[in-house]
Amino acid sequence: RAQDVMAKAGLDALLLTTEPELRYFTGFLIWFWESPTRPWFLVVPASGDPVAVIPSIGAPLMGRTWITDIRTWDAPDYGDDGVALLTETLREVARGDIGVPMGLETHLRMPLADWTRLQRQGLSLVPDNGLVRALRAVKSEAEIGKIRATCGVAGRAFARVPEIAREGAPLDAVFRRFQMLGLEEGADWVPYVAGAAEPGGYADVISPAGTKPLARGDVLMLDTGMVRDGYFCDFDRNFSVGPPTPEVRDAHARLIEATSVAADLARPGVAAMELYQAMDRVLTGGQGTPGRLGHGLGMQLTEGLSLIPSDRTELEPGMVITLEPGIAVSPGRILVHEEDIAIRDGVPEFLSPRAGAEMVEL
Amino acid sequence: RAQDVMAKAGLDALLLTTEPELRYFTGFLIWFWESPTRPWFLVVPASGDPVAVIPSIGAPLMGRTWITDIRTWDAPDYGDDGVALLTETLREVARGDIGVPMGLETHLRMPLADWTRLQRQGLSLVPDNGLVRALRAVKSEAEIGKIRATCGVAGRAFARVPEIAREGAPLDAVFRRFQMLGLEEGADWVPYVAGAAEPGGYADVISPAGTKPLARGDVLMLDTGMVRDGYFCDFDRNFSVGPPTPEVRDAHARLIEATSVAADLARPGVAAMELYQAMDRVLTGGQGTPGRLGHGLGMQLTEGLSLIPSDRTELEPGMVITLEPGIAVSPGRILVHEEDIAIRDGVPEFLSPRAGAEMVEL
Repeated sequence: RAQDVMAKAGLDALLLTTEPELRYFTGFLIWFWESPTRPWFLVVPASGDPVAVIPSIGAPLMGRTWITDIRTWDAPDYGDDGVALLTETLREVARGDIGVPMGLETHLRMPLADWTRLQRQGLSLVPDNGLVRALRAVKSEAEIGKIRATCGVAGRAFARVPEIAREGAPLDAVFRRFQMLGLEEGADWVPYVAGAAEPGGYADVISPAGTKPLARGDVLMLDTGMVRDGYFCDFDRNFSVGPPTPEVRDAHARLIEATSVAADLARPGVAAMELYQAMDRVLTGGQGTPGRLGHGLGMQLTEGLSLIPSDRTELEPGMVITLEPGIAVSPGRILVHEEDIAIRDGVPEFLSPRAGAEMVEL
Repeated sequence: RAQDVMAKAGLDALLLTTEPELRYFTGFLIWFWESPTRPWFLVVPASGDPVAVIPSIGAPLMGRTWITDIRTWDAPDYGDDGVALLTETLREVARGDIGVPMGLETHLRMPLADWTRLQRQGLSLVPDNGLVRALRAVKSEAEIGKIRATCGVAGRAFARVPEIAREGAPLDAVFRRFQMLGLEEGADWVPYVAGAAEPGGYADVISPAGTKPLARGDVLMLDTGMVRDGYFCDFDRNFSVGPPTPEVRDAHARLIEATSVAADLARPGVAAMELYQAMDRVLTGGQGTPGRLGHGLGMQLTEGLSLIPSDRTELEPGMVITLEPGIAVSPGRILVHEEDIAIRDGVPEFLSPRAGAEMVEL
């Protein structure tokens, strides 16, 4: 698929430097990216197999993927941390343009000084114009299966939240115990947990936990990106500590309704912005909900399209996205709900176990 | 400290884009970096307080740090994802050079296309020449205290490994249970676990777990970077499933000896390369051990100096480093040991609970 698109775009090669980009083309799955010390490179030529240009410490594991052309140097090398080897490899496979992801959501995972050095080697390094982003947005059935499995893990963990969260439990302890539930239910790791617990809704949905104990009247929200076999889920659940107020109950029901409306609409050919607009009509009567109301999902917690008024991306079968409506309950107090769906030829498939309109009471 | 060094270097400002860089100057601690969608910027001026230029979704949490000048835009904005606001801010605080981390272990966390746009605004964006790296290498007592606490968490988890690892236990289950132990003992999250279990040593130390059950004669190695309050530990432990062979026992004792020799030598003024050489003498008689035998540690799993033959960095009081000797037991089979120490005016302080020469037997 990549080489077909590269041919149309007139690219002789792609140069990739980040974890999801390398893994997408090689299957190289390793936690070692947590160490910023060493750069890693993958060169995807216009024809033939990709070439890995990587620190020697990664060679044994890369050798267990389908990649056979693995070129290594002993990193960190203060004199030349792979730039000469990379230059030589790029010259070998590309006489013309080499595409590099430079747009939305991308970054270059190598020191800028080394990038500048690479730019001086007479290579034609050009933007990939979103080529890799577009490829990754449409998942294979194998990829959807992995995301479905991870959603199942998180779903089972969410179902067990009443075991770990009750009045008096400090929020940071709930966060820890929730991660443990995820691991127990089969997550390989839990790179993302955010949430809040405040009376009648919360102020934001991305903060880490404080130490305040849950109190009657709080709405507890837990949002998680767990990973199994390299693929993320990303959805949340809201819980009420004791019975919810009528305002909270209504707001939650509205979120579930917005999710349903968006899911009903989510067919191939519909634009991302239309899903935003459909949810916003339910949430505010079309006044404009702040923020984005969903996004693509896969090898990263968020990737690809955004459900915002300016995103004209058309849905395609195989895309996996989140629906993430938010609503104001009172000034400074919001509720946010999130589910994960796969776009299909007909109705979308819910990958996360769909929440009911009634909040679970703790 | 930063502004003193900036004055000497003739910098009007620093421009920072990555998680540890922003957190170092602000205390902004959030898991949300897992989402690649939005860039975040911090401008540290030559005098006065830093200015945060960030997506509006992060304003509530940034508002709870000591930073008061917080400028936001609604990201993602497909027309201009913060570049105009950042340009305006940089122009306001800097007429001359703006330092950007561009060297070893750094990257720029914003799309290259936006960086190119920023470069065309007539600003003088220059390398920071390792200024931020050098600042971060020397920890305050508060930082050392946090690393000590995290080492304590991992130490308690390692002490409980016999509860979760025994003959017949699949390695991936051991990895999951080990993360759960870390959380139970007080880790906020566990972003790094690597290891292996193979007879008489292992092939590499950075791979994820397979499903193979532990077998008698295996050496199980678990290496972890847990985080508590934003600071990492990074050390490992080796376990023998059943009694170790004499070769494995001797190799492990040699690793412990190498660690002791390096720790005895680790005083202010000694160079990183000297610690490498001292360990290598114990490990190979000075033939040269492949890879690096330790590194700096702090807000990242690995940061700062490397214990390699070419690193001339002199140790300073307050530096926190790992000692990580590795040894070949037989062809293709190695053992690696790791401890964390703080450099002091006299003998270094062991932050990790020091392992004994005898491997723990499962």
